[in-house]
Amino acid sequence: MIALDAMGGDFAPAVAVEGAINAARRGISIGLFGPQAILEPMLTSIDVQWRSLPITLIHCSQAIGMAEEPGRSVLKKTDASLVRAVQAVAQGHATAVVSAGNSGAALVAGTLILGRVEGVARPAFGDFLPTCKGSVFCLDLGANTDCKPEYLEQFALMGYCYAKQMKGIAHPRVALLSNGAEPYKGSSAVKEAYARLAHLPINFVGNIESRDVLDDHADVVVCDGFAGNVMLKAMQGSARTMMSWLKQEAAKSWWRKLALLSAAPLLKELKSRVDYANRGGALLLGVNHPLLVAHGCSSALAIERSLIIAHEVVQQQRLVAFNRSLQQLIGKSTTKAVAPLLDETKERELS
Amino acid sequence: MIALDAMGGDFAPAVAVEGAINAARRGISIGLFGPQAILEPMLTSIDVQWRSLPITLIHCSQAIGMAEEPGRSVLKKTDASLVRAVQAVAQGHATAVVSAGNSGAALVAGTLILGRVEGVARPAFGDFLPTCKGSVFCLDLGANTDCKPEYLEQFALMGYCYAKQMKGIAHPRVALLSNGAEPYKGSSAVKEAYARLAHLPINFVGNIESRDVLDDHADVVVCDGFAGNVMLKAMQGSARTMMSWLKQEAAKSWWRKLALLSAAPLLKELKSRVDYANRGGALLLGVNHPLLVAHGCSSALAIERSLIIAHEVVQQQRLVAFNRSLQQLIGKSTTKAVAPLLDETKERELS
Repeated sequence: MIALDAMGGDFAPAVAVEGAINAARRGISIGLFGPQAILEPMLTSIDVQWRSLPITLIHCSQAIGMAEEPGRSVLKKTDASLVRAVQAVAQGHATAVVSAGNSGAALVAGTLILGRVEGVARPAFGDFLPTCKGSVFCLDLGANTDCKPEYLEQFALMGYCYAKQMKGIAHPRVALLSNGAEPYKGSSAVKEAYARLAHLPINFVGNIESRDVLDDHADVVVCDGFAGNVMLKAMQGSARTMMSWLKQEAAKSWWRKLALLSAAPLLKELKSRVDYANRGGALLLGVNHPLLVAHGCSSALAIERSLIIAHEVVQQQRLVAFNRSLQQLIGKSTTKAVAPLLDETKERELS
Repeated sequence: MIALDAMGGDFAPAVAVEGAINAARRGISIGLFGPQAILEPMLTSIDVQWRSLPITLIHCSQAIGMAEEPGRSVLKKTDASLVRAVQAVAQGHATAVVSAGNSGAALVAGTLILGRVEGVARPAFGDFLPTCKGSVFCLDLGANTDCKPEYLEQFALMGYCYAKQMKGIAHPRVALLSNGAEPYKGSSAVKEAYARLAHLPINFVGNIESRDVLDDHADVVVCDGFAGNVMLKAMQGSARTMMSWLKQEAAKSWWRKLALLSAAPLLKELKSRVDYANRGGALLLGVNHPLLVAHGCSSALAIERSLIIAHEVVQQQRLVAFNRSLQQLIGKSTTKAVAPLLDETKERELS
């Protein structure tokens, strides 16, 4: 059973309910976590026969909002849909968890409740971004806003391991996101990470600029969660802006409208390629069980896709295999990172 | 006279020479800094009559490469075209300087030779990015990779001042780049900067995600040089990737080719809007004289545009007025930032 936090995301619970029904129709068993009084009528309105689908409704009285402070909300709201969904996985009632909600809260719940893989200092959100030739695995996309060089070093090991396993590449090219390709470029943490990555038993190809990330220069791009998030959302935003510019320009004359209309199928394909509202979620790497966080503005399709990805991760035992090889690689690598369970600031907030 | 570093950039000195000739034909007086033996034949090959144009050739025997370490190269290569061009401004022989070369070296030369405006802790690269409704002024785009919260605070003052003066907006909306719109989102430096910005005598509108930067939510976006650079280049990269996807898709069938062909004028306009190779340079704010850094891959057109911008900045005494109001605003703001002249790491390297 895949546990779905029905109350997470900008369009929750409507898109979660619809996504759950569509995934369940594909035969995926879903545990839907949220307030029964809201979810039950919603399920019925979409499909009166929903009880014949593999959907289990698990009542929770609380929800964590998108703007709530992550650490505090996870600790205080013990009956929140997210917390209960993650607990279900830790307790063995579910095999993976999906949420489109507060990603900080998902990170805290994942780290505390699912537990970190032995040797891992910080779990990280990783996802494949489409490139001109295939895809590139980027991490961290938002879990750790302040990163020590040793965290970046571990992200490199995680990304290397994951790309190797998922894409079957013998020696994935690992690059470090920086403000220039030269080794001396970067923040002080990135510069120190560069030196560390150069000594790892991986295929480190040096610094990469965000401009070149989608250009097949690397299979894995390593960054801290702040820069990764800025990069990802800048790509999404400029794609959206380009589309709206095209429409603006097209509105200026009838022949432009006609031109745009004729290119519409092409542009539609492009849009579907970059549209984050319909993408499946990012996996939290470095924890013991699969946790996928979908975009806050996820559509029902994105939720359905995230559930399918989670189902595949479980079916193919991907995370089990990945965690095993990651542990070995961390064991082999000379530098060992020691880190507190959470950010110092988060710890202060929690205490 | 505008001093142009002829040896800076990926396509130097050819594009610099061509850009200089085109700007000089517009009546802008240019000081071209570089090796005479190389530049003279180049000038002649483009225009045998170049001596009748307002171009002065100033011989320099050295050049700073794109991959050279900034601090060291500026201090050691005293006859480098960049260093000499900046010195010409400091000594009053030129009124502004333009370079498409090593931006780190330009920052060091600008800070050391032109001098910081009184009260400014760190100069920053700022530029207007085109949005759906006009433009947004972003800083820092790459000068300071490690930023203390007080630097971000000053960037907010700089941006506010600059947007006010350049765009004539009474109270420019200033936003802080973060990984989420919520006040608790961000790296520790960004979170602290948020609290500081909220107390400044400016129109602070809170955090902004990179996705929304081009969407007219703010007139000024404040960020550290690492995140700003990642954001800017991610936007450029995804625009380029979208164009190449369109071409790939179009190549798949004749009707798609036809569709793309009919939309070509539209796409061409879009391309010119996002094409950084043809954009003018970013201004270094916080120093006493105008210094523009153009993109490393600048075309002759970008160099020409940078020279025109520099000329306008001088003619309209923009920097003089800006520096005056910035000093007043910094004087008024309660927190005073004290900072070393350069990064600690740079200082170590130099010593």
